[in-house]
Amino acid sequence: MTSTGSEPAAPGAVVLGANQYGKAEVRLVRIVRDTPVHRIIDLNVTSQLRGDFSACYAAGDNSLVVATDTQKNIVYALAKEIGVASPEEFLLALARHFTVSYDWLTGGRWAAEEYGWDRIVVDGAPHDHAFVRGGRLVRTAVVQTAGENTWVIAGFTDCVVLKSTGSEFHGFPRDRYTTLAETDDRILATSITARWRYAHTEVDFNARHAEIVDLALRTFASVHSLALQQTMFAIGTAILEACPEVAEIKLSCPNKHHFAVDLAPFGLDNPNEVFFAADRPYGLIEATVQRAGAAEVPQAWETVPGFC
Amino acid sequence: MTSTGSEPAAPGAVVLGANQYGKAEVRLVRIVRDTPVHRIIDLNVTSQLRGDFSACYAAGDNSLVVATDTQKNIVYALAKEIGVASPEEFLLALARHFTVSYDWLTGGRWAAEEYGWDRIVVDGAPHDHAFVRGGRLVRTAVVQTAGENTWVIAGFTDCVVLKSTGSEFHGFPRDRYTTLAETDDRILATSITARWRYAHTEVDFNARHAEIVDLALRTFASVHSLALQQTMFAIGTAILEACPEVAEIKLSCPNKHHFAVDLAPFGLDNPNEVFFAADRPYGLIEATVQRAGAAEVPQAWETVPGFC
Amino acid sequence: MTSTGSEPAAPGAVVLGANQYGKAEVRLVRIVRDTPVHRIIDLNVTSQLRGDFSACYAAGDNSLVVATDTQKNIVYALAKEIGVASPEEFLLALARHFTVSYDWLTGGRWAAEEYGWDRIVVDGAPHDHAFVRGGRLVRTAVVQTAGENTWVIAGFTDCVVLKSTGSEFHGFPRDRYTTLAETDDRILATSITARWRYAHTEVDFNARHAEIVDLALRTFASVHSLALQQTMFAIGTAILEACPEVAEIKLSCPNKHHFAVDLAPFGLDNPNEVFFAADRPYGLIEATVQRAGAAEVPQAWETVPGFC
Amino acid sequence: MTSTGSEPAAPGAVVLGANQYGKAEVRLVRIVRDTPVHRIIDLNVTSQLRGDFSACYAAGDNSLVVATDTQKNIVYALAKEIGVASPEEFLLALARHFTVSYDWLTGGRWAAEEYGWDRIVVDGAPHDHAFVRGGRLVRTAVVQTAGENTWVIAGFTDCVVLKSTGSEFHGFPRDRYTTLAETDDRILATSITARWRYAHTEVDFNARHAEIVDLALRTFASVHSLALQQTMFAIGTAILEACPEVAEIKLSCPNKHHFAVDLAPFGLDNPNEVFFAADRPYGLIEATVQRAGAAEVPQAWETVPGFC
Repeated sequence: MTSTGSEPAAPGAVVLGANQYGKAEVRLVRIVRDTPVHRIIDLNVTSQLRGDFSACYAAGDNSLVVATDTQKNIVYALAKEIGVASPEEFLLALARHFTVSYDWLTGGRWAAEEYGWDRIVVDGAPHDHAFVRGGRLVRTAVVQTAGENTWVIAGFTDCVVLKSTGSEFHGFPRDRYTTLAETDDRILATSITARWRYAHTEVDFNARHAEIVDLALRTFASVHSLALQQTMFAIGTAILEACPEVAEIKLSCPNKHHFAVDLAPFGLDNPNEVFFAADRPYGLIEATVQRAGAAEVPQAWETVPGFC
Repeated sequence: MTSTGSEPAAPGAVVLGANQYGKAEVRLVRIVRDTPVHRIIDLNVTSQLRGDFSACYAAGDNSLVVATDTQKNIVYALAKEIGVASPEEFLLALARHFTVSYDWLTGGRWAAEEYGWDRIVVDGAPHDHAFVRGGRLVRTAVVQTAGENTWVIAGFTDCVVLKSTGSEFHGFPRDRYTTLAETDDRILATSITARWRYAHTEVDFNARHAEIVDLALRTFASVHSLALQQTMFAIGTAILEACPEVAEIKLSCPNKHHFAVDLAPFGLDNPNEVFFAADRPYGLIEATVQRAGAAEVPQAWETVPGFC
Repeated sequence: MTSTGSEPAAPGAVVLGANQYGKAEVRLVRIVRDTPVHRIIDLNVTSQLRGDFSACYAAGDNSLVVATDTQKNIVYALAKEIGVASPEEFLLALARHFTVSYDWLTGGRWAAEEYGWDRIVVDGAPHDHAFVRGGRLVRTAVVQTAGENTWVIAGFTDCVVLKSTGSEFHGFPRDRYTTLAETDDRILATSITARWRYAHTEVDFNARHAEIVDLALRTFASVHSLALQQTMFAIGTAILEACPEVAEIKLSCPNKHHFAVDLAPFGLDNPNEVFFAADRPYGLIEATVQRAGAAEVPQAWETVPGFC
Repeated sequence: MTSTGSEPAAPGAVVLGANQYGKAEVRLVRIVRDTPVHRIIDLNVTSQLRGDFSACYAAGDNSLVVATDTQKNIVYALAKEIGVASPEEFLLALARHFTVSYDWLTGGRWAAEEYGWDRIVVDGAPHDHAFVRGGRLVRTAVVQTAGENTWVIAGFTDCVVLKSTGSEFHGFPRDRYTTLAETDDRILATSITARWRYAHTEVDFNARHAEIVDLALRTFASVHSLALQQTMFAIGTAILEACPEVAEIKLSCPNKHHFAVDLAPFGLDNPNEVFFAADRPYGLIEATVQRAGAAEVPQAWETVPGFC
C-alpha cells in the first residue's frame, strides 16, 4: 500500500497516504445442488481495492471509484459463475477479476471467514440437505495483491482448547512486583488464532487446512507444557515440518486463565478439581514461527491482524 | 414471587413488590480426575434468592441478605463436595442448600448454562485430558422453588440449523402492504432455543437432554416445511411423544433469512444457488407445545426467558 | 397469551399452547425534514401477533399468517404516514393498525428500542442536520394488547452509573461460607435497566421519560447507600411519587463490582484509589416498586424481560 | 519486532520470528480523591513485552519471562504511585518502568482504552462523586518502544455520526455489474475510528485529544460530501493543519448504509424521510493523511490496528 498522490506535493503539505476501500462482510451462502446431496459453503467476504484514488479524497471525483455496491454484486456473480471451491481459490478469483476489469487498480485485499456446517444425521445417515452449524473454529483466508505479486494467508480463529493437566509454570523472575505462585500442575486453556502464509498458490487448500487444524489440536494435546509459548512453538514447528507449502505461521493465543478456587476457608481441599474461569485480564502470547534464512515478506501481512 | 412487605401498607403507599437477588454468572469449571481419564464440566451458574428483604430495601438492613459473594462461595464449595452430575442435579442441590441453610428464604431461582467440550483425538484415540470446545449449542437449565414446590426447566440455545431445500412458504394473506413473493423452494434456517419443563425430578437429565437435542435435529431435517411454525410444532410433538417426563416445551426460532440474490442484472440465472444471509430484520416465531388438559404452571416459567 | 386450539383435544394429546410470531428488529430511522432543522428518530422495532394460528402449526396453512415481511412493510409505511412522535405512540398506532386490519388477531406485542442522537455543535451552535450518537442509555418501550386491553411499558437499559464513595455494605449474615469483609466505603456501580408501566395512555411520553431518567440519576447520586437494594428502592419511590401515571416500576441492577486492589505486597497502601473493575460474576438485584393495594397486572408484563 | 534467535539456525530450520507477550485488558479504575470532588479515570490496559524469549519457546525456560501476572501488578502499582494524568503519559511510564527494570527487554507495546464518565447533575450542579458513563466514543492510546525509540499513537473508536442531508454519491464507473443508482441526497453515516501519531512526546495529551475529537465532529458536519473519502480527507487535513504535533493520522470509516425504503408499493412517496439502517455488508474506507516529504515510520504502526 503506497501513497499514490498523482502529483508531487510541497514538503509539509497535507497529502493522502496509504488507503484502501471496498465492501466489508458480504454474507454469501453458496449451495451446490448438482445432485440431491447438496453442499453448502458459508462465507463472509470483504473486498478492498487499492490504487490512486486521490481525486476522490481531494475533490469527491468518483470516476475511478468502483462502487462498494458493485463490489458486492461481483462477489455474488462470481459465486454463481465459478463457484467456491475453497475460500482461498474464490478470493484469488476475485483478485483476478478486479485487477483485470479495472486496470487502474494497483492491487487489493480480499478476505473471508468461513463457517462450518455438519450434516444432520437421521437414522444413522447424513442428511442430503439438512445441516447444523459446527462451532469448533472459524476458517479465515486473506489474499493480497500488489502489481504482479499475490500472497495467500490462510488461518482459523476461535478454536478453544483446554488441558486439565500436563501444564506447569515456574522459573519466572521474582521481584518486588511478583505475587504469582509457581505451579507444576495447572489448567492450560487458550483460544487459538493461527494465520499462515503459503509460499505459492499451487495448494490443495481444503486438504491443507484440515491437516493443519488437526496438527494444531494434536500438538496442543500432546506437548507437556512448561509455558504456553512452548506449546505454541511446538504447534508452529509441527505445521512447518509437515507442510512444505507453508512459509511461516503466526499464532495469537490468549491464556484463558482457570484459577483453582481456594476452598480452605470452607474446610475443603481443592486438588485441582474446582476452577474459576476468568474473563479479564488474560495473558496474551503472540509469535511467528518461520524458516531460517527465508526472506521476510511484510507486504503479505500488512493489514492482516496477525498480532491483534 | 410475591410481594413480601412485612406490614400492611396504606393504600397507594409505595411498597416493595416481587424481587430477587443473587450472584450471576459464576463461571465454574469442574474437573473429575478420579482416573487419568479426566472429565470436564463447564458451567455458568446464577443463584437468586427470594424472601422478605423489605428491611434491606427500605433501610439498608442487611441482616437477612446472604451476600452474593457468599452465594458464589457456596457454588464452588458444593461443586467440590457433591460434584456436578448434571446441571439440573447441581441446581437442585443448590436450591436445597440455600433454602435449608437460610430458613427465612421462601424460594429462589438457580440457573446454568453448560458449554460442551469434545476430547481431542490423537492417533485415532480420544485424549485423556485434552479437550476442544464444541459449539453446536449451549445447554441450559433453570430450577425454581417456592415453598414446597420445585420446578425444573431444561433447554438449549444457539443451535443453528439450515435446510437448503424442502421448505415452502405461500398462501399467506395478500393486501396493500404485501410485497413478498410466494415460494415453493427456499432455504429454511433458524437458531433453535428450546426450553422444556420436566413433570418431576426423577429424570436421567443427561440422557434425556441428548435425546431431545437429537429429536429436534432429526425432526427439523425430516419435515417438509410449509412454514417454520409447522416445523416447530413437529419438533415439539416429537419430543412430547417420546419423552413422558416432559410436560411442555417452548420453542423460540428466529427465521434466519437467506435471500436468493437477483443475478438477472448480470445476465445470470440463480436457481437457488447463491444467497445473501441477512442479519436484521428477521422473523421470530415463539410457541408452546403442551399436553391437552394439563394444568398450567405459570410459576415454573416466571423469569425464564421463554419468549424473549 | 392463551392457547387457541380451534377444537377441543383429547386429554394428553399434544396441542399448541401460547404462541406469537412477527418481525423482529426492524431498523427504522425516521428523518423529519419539514424545516432545514432536521430531526432524527432511530428505532429498532419488533412486531409480534397473537391469535389462533393452529392451522399453520398443525398443517402449514398460512391463510391467517400475515407474513412477517408484511409486518416489516407496515412499520415503514406507518412511519411515513403518521410519523413517530414517541416510541410509545408509534407502537400504539402499530397495535391499532394490526388489530383493526386483521380482525382474527386477538392481540399482540410491539416493542422498540430507541437510540439517542445529539446535534453536533459547530461554532457554538447545534448543527441543522449533523448528529453524533449519544450513549448514556437505550430507551425502550413495549405495547401489548389483548382484546380490549392495552398496556404500555416504557423504560431504559444500559445506563451505567458509579459513585466513588457514599456506599457501605455490612451487617449481612456470616457463616461457614462467608469470606467477604464488611466495608463502610466502597465504589457502587451498576447498569440500570428500568421498566415502568403506565396506568393509561394519556401521557406525554417523551417528557415523562426524560423526567424519569433524570430522577433515577439524581436519586442514585444522592442516596447514601447501605445496599444497592436501598438505592434501587429509593429510585423507584422517587419515580412513583413524582409520576402519578406510573403504576409500577421494575428495576434490574447488576452490581458492577470494583475491588480495591491489594497493593500491600508492593509496599503501598490503597485508600480506595486503585480498583479492579470485574466482569463476572456479579451481584444482580431485581425488584418491583409498586403502589399498595393496586391490582396486579401480570398480562402487561408477560414476555417483557423485567427480571432477565 | 525482529526475530531474536540467540544462535544462527541452519537455513530452512524452524525458528522463532517476531513475538510479544503480556497481560491484556487489565481493567483499572483510578479514583483521585485528594479533595471531596473526586475524579475518575477508567482504563483497559494491555502490556506486551519484546525481547529474546527463544529459550521459553524452545524449551519452556521462563527465566526471562516476566509473568503476565506481574505485569498486571505493575499496572496497578504504578497507578497508585504516579497516578494517571492521561492514558498516553501512563503508558509512557509503564514503558519506562518495564524497560528499565528488566534490561533484557528490547522494547514493548503498551495500549489502553479509556471510557468516559460525566458527572451526574443534581439540582443544577455537577455531583462530587457520582458519575454516568458517557458513550460518544472510546479513547485509545498505544505506546511502542524499540531500543531508544518511542512512538505514541493516540486515537478514538466508536464515534458514530450521521448527516441527514448534505451528502451525494455519483459519477462512479458503470459496467455490467453496476446496479447502484446515483444520488444527490442521501444519509451519510459512519463510525469513526481515528489513530494519529504524535511527532514527539511533549504534548498536552488531554487537551489535544479533546481538540481533535471536536475537529473531527465539526468537519464531518460542515463538509458537503461527494464521497465518504472526501469527508475523511477533510477531517485528516483539518487535524494536521491545526495540530503541529500530529505527524500523520489514519482513519477507518465503515459506511453505515441507510437505505430510503421504497414505499411506492404502498402508494406512498418517500422524500428521504423513512430509512432502513442496514447492518451488513457495509462500505469500508480506510485512509492515511500525512505530511508530504515526512519519513515513513512503519515501526510505530506495527501491531496497531490501523486498517482493521
